[in-house]
Amino acid sequence: MLLFSYFFSRSVMHKKYNCSPWVDTPALLNHFYNTDRRMGVGGIKKTMSIVVQKYGGTSVGSVERIQHVARRVVQAREAGHDCVVVVSAMGKSTDKLVDMAKEICPYPDEREMDMLLTTGEQVSIALLTMALHQLGHKAVSMTGWQAGILTEPVHGSARIKKINPEPVLNELKQGKIVVVAGFQGWTEDRQITTLGRGGSDTTAVALAASLNAERCEIYTDVTGVYTADPRIVPQARKLKSISYDEMLELANLGAGVLHPRAVETAKNHDVKLVVCSSFVDEPGTKVEEESNMEQGLVVSGVAHDKDIAKITVTKMPNRVGTLSKLFTTLAENHINVDIIIQSTYVADTTNISFSVSGNDLKKTLEVLENNKDKLSYEEVLHEDGLAKVSIVGAGMISNPGVAARMFHELSEADVPIHMVSTSEIKVSCVIPAGKTEEAVNALHTAFGLNAEDQAVVHGS
Amino acid sequence: MLLFSYFFSRSVMHKKYNCSPWVDTPALLNHFYNTDRRMGVGGIKKTMSIVVQKYGGTSVGSVERIQHVARRVVQAREAGHDCVVVVSAMGKSTDKLVDMAKEICPYPDEREMDMLLTTGEQVSIALLTMALHQLGHKAVSMTGWQAGILTEPVHGSARIKKINPEPVLNELKQGKIVVVAGFQGWTEDRQITTLGRGGSDTTAVALAASLNAERCEIYTDVTGVYTADPRIVPQARKLKSISYDEMLELANLGAGVLHPRAVETAKNHDVKLVVCSSFVDEPGTKVEEESNMEQGLVVSGVAHDKDIAKITVTKMPNRVGTLSKLFTTLAENHINVDIIIQSTYVADTTNISFSVSGNDLKKTLEVLENNKDKLSYEEVLHEDGLAKVSIVGAGMISNPGVAARMFHELSEADVPIHMVSTSEIKVSCVIPAGKTEEAVNALHTAFGLNAEDQAVVHGS
Repeated sequence: MLLFSYFFSRSVMHKKYNCSPWVDTPALLNHFYNTDRRMGVGGIKKTMSIVVQKYGGTSVGSVERIQHVARRVVQAREAGHDCVVVVSAMGKSTDKLVDMAKEICPYPDEREMDMLLTTGEQVSIALLTMALHQLGHKAVSMTGWQAGILTEPVHGSARIKKINPEPVLNELKQGKIVVVAGFQGWTEDRQITTLGRGGSDTTAVALAASLNAERCEIYTDVTGVYTADPRIVPQARKLKSISYDEMLELANLGAGVLHPRAVETAKNHDVKLVVCSSFVDEPGTKVEEESNMEQGLVVSGVAHDKDIAKITVTKMPNRVGTLSKLFTTLAENHINVDIIIQSTYVADTTNISFSVSGNDLKKTLEVLENNKDKLSYEEVLHEDGLAKVSIVGAGMISNPGVAARMFHELSEADVPIHMVSTSEIKVSCVIPAGKTEEAVNALHTAFGLNAEDQAVVHGS
Repeated sequence: MLLFSYFFSRSVMHKKYNCSPWVDTPALLNHFYNTDRRMGVGGIKKTMSIVVQKYGGTSVGSVERIQHVARRVVQAREAGHDCVVVVSAMGKSTDKLVDMAKEICPYPDEREMDMLLTTGEQVSIALLTMALHQLGHKAVSMTGWQAGILTEPVHGSARIKKINPEPVLNELKQGKIVVVAGFQGWTEDRQITTLGRGGSDTTAVALAASLNAERCEIYTDVTGVYTADPRIVPQARKLKSISYDEMLELANLGAGVLHPRAVETAKNHDVKLVVCSSFVDEPGTKVEEESNMEQGLVVSGVAHDKDIAKITVTKMPNRVGTLSKLFTTLAENHINVDIIIQSTYVADTTNISFSVSGNDLKKTLEVLENNKDKLSYEEVLHEDGLAKVSIVGAGMISNPGVAARMFHELSEADVPIHMVSTSEIKVSCVIPAGKTEEAVNALHTAFGLNAEDQAVVHGS
């Protein structure tokens, strides 16, 4: 309802002035500031040109980097925007905290891990705010709970339930740049929670949605979304734009540039996303509903994930409920399963293979071992040191034979395929991890994605 | 009102069972647990034997130290107490944060410094709670705001306005050890604040008062309150007990073992304090209303502060309001002045000397320079590298000549005296910092305080 009224006011504004929501219009906004500011939150929403910027851990990894980020934020501010900045913990600081916790307790309590890890972003917001002060700008920092970010009562990977935009809006109205701690929130019970991996992206997108921001800029160590990881494919090409669905597949497939939950939130709330570099000043990649598809390209990107394990459970009873029992048991133990293959050799038993993240292999084997009686299998085989390469593109839907072409290219490059999975806009193959670079480069070339110049990666 | 009802219930309990509030009575408490637990917060308050323990930065300076503290806390828990533990930031972690802030901003905003520094205790509470879990105990951590510690809306050195005991009591009722972040609170406006230097002591004492705790134990790197700093006087002797007033003078005079505000809070709320070591297991020093005065001792301790500066403002107009104008200006700039001496050479002008902490010297000179016209003095002289030595003892009131004896001893030890200040229970002299050890040892010996054994100092 709140979101609706925001959208309404924005669409009215654009109709009246006949301009696109993507155009920067400080003069126009000044007009609105003067006429609408008085209306406050209770009346028709005043229209601010809010830009949400998110800077990851590498971007704020040192005092110098924080000062650099402050200068970038000030550019946006001086261009006439109201700025909300979301930051992650500095560089490796989260890892250091995790190490200390593990030294004390091999399986630390998740509530206490949240208490511990949320200090990382709190340090970043304070330091960035000081750097903004030093540049002569008004600025204020806010923890997740101060910024009204309410989550489910779950520790370690809570989902945002809602955001009260008032605390941030009140500070923006006073002309301040608002610096918000990413990755964290609180519950109705006043417990501190975290949003799990990539949570700062989600914080930024959700804040952008609740504030009805013009756009959400995700600053990272690459200059945008690439046709493949530039660290592996030197000829990777930056996309000018990509659709939410393609980005979602890429994100889910391990393209680390954006977290899938953030993309999902952006898609659901129609938040205009821009992925750009905090290291160099060049246009990034827009993520939006209708992307200007790269002309003539069936595949728009090649993704990979280098840490995959394959598990095979043999001779399970071949009857209704077997699959359900197996995967319910794994889900209850918070194990994410990716590709699943069922094969039947003899009538009354079945072999089931599936892939998990390499990180989860040990835990998965333990869970299977502990549930051997319940699941009544014969044995568990496993294979690690695997990777997954995927091609993604909305153009696949209307181009049959893309999967066959992929298998052919991998075979030509002498890459064995262990498992296969497909969706309408992607094909994934599990291969030996040692073959990842060859596979990704072969596919990138074969599907015509190579650029003429080499991509530059910063801070990695 | 709430406090009153707690006191009432405790006094009833002790009358009924005819035991002193200082006696540990787990069996008795179990009786109360069984009969009164049901009554909850709404009815007559159940009587818990709550002990508040406070551990400083050195005591939680490493993972090993935190594990050691956890074992200490568990001892108290297993003796039948409900335990509330207040901790400071780990070792030098606050200094590291301050250094980063100063690198970004020479005079960082105090609100943002509070945001930054409060992360230090938040790390400690999470890690200590994990260590308690690892020992098989139920425990939960709480930030200052989660523990209901409400302060004035001042950053950097807020005073506690009130504490809502409910959040802590609710967790204690569930059988948990509650680990609270020292040094921090929040305002009615949801701003994070800090209590200034020594704030964790104050947190512990204020919590003990609001929870009507049996006692508040301050764990530090010495085994109690000594007749002098054992790091300087090897023959320093541990006091079995000391009165609030004496402790207050000692604390104000730079005996770092307890913060003056904590002592003041303890005195005002009648909180039984015990100062003891987190490194060794031996009885500490009780701080209480009527101390068992050490027999025949006029002086109960020698304190010192090694970082003092003396400032002289010459030829100020000798008229009403001069002193007030000078010291109001300094107070407005948050400069704490200690000893003040006014001397008049000619009828119409006056020289004023005062001492400040060495840390404040630069700022003081700046403030005086910036207000030269308003204060209309001729010049400002200053001297740093000074120290203050003080003798403290309630026995002085009835023993004239103690100050004269002190001057005589310092003179015998060839220590020049720059300034003097006295109160009913102390005499302070400002001397060259290089003479501190000689002066303190000479006074300690002269006033009969030497022990037969040498004191042991840990973790320094």
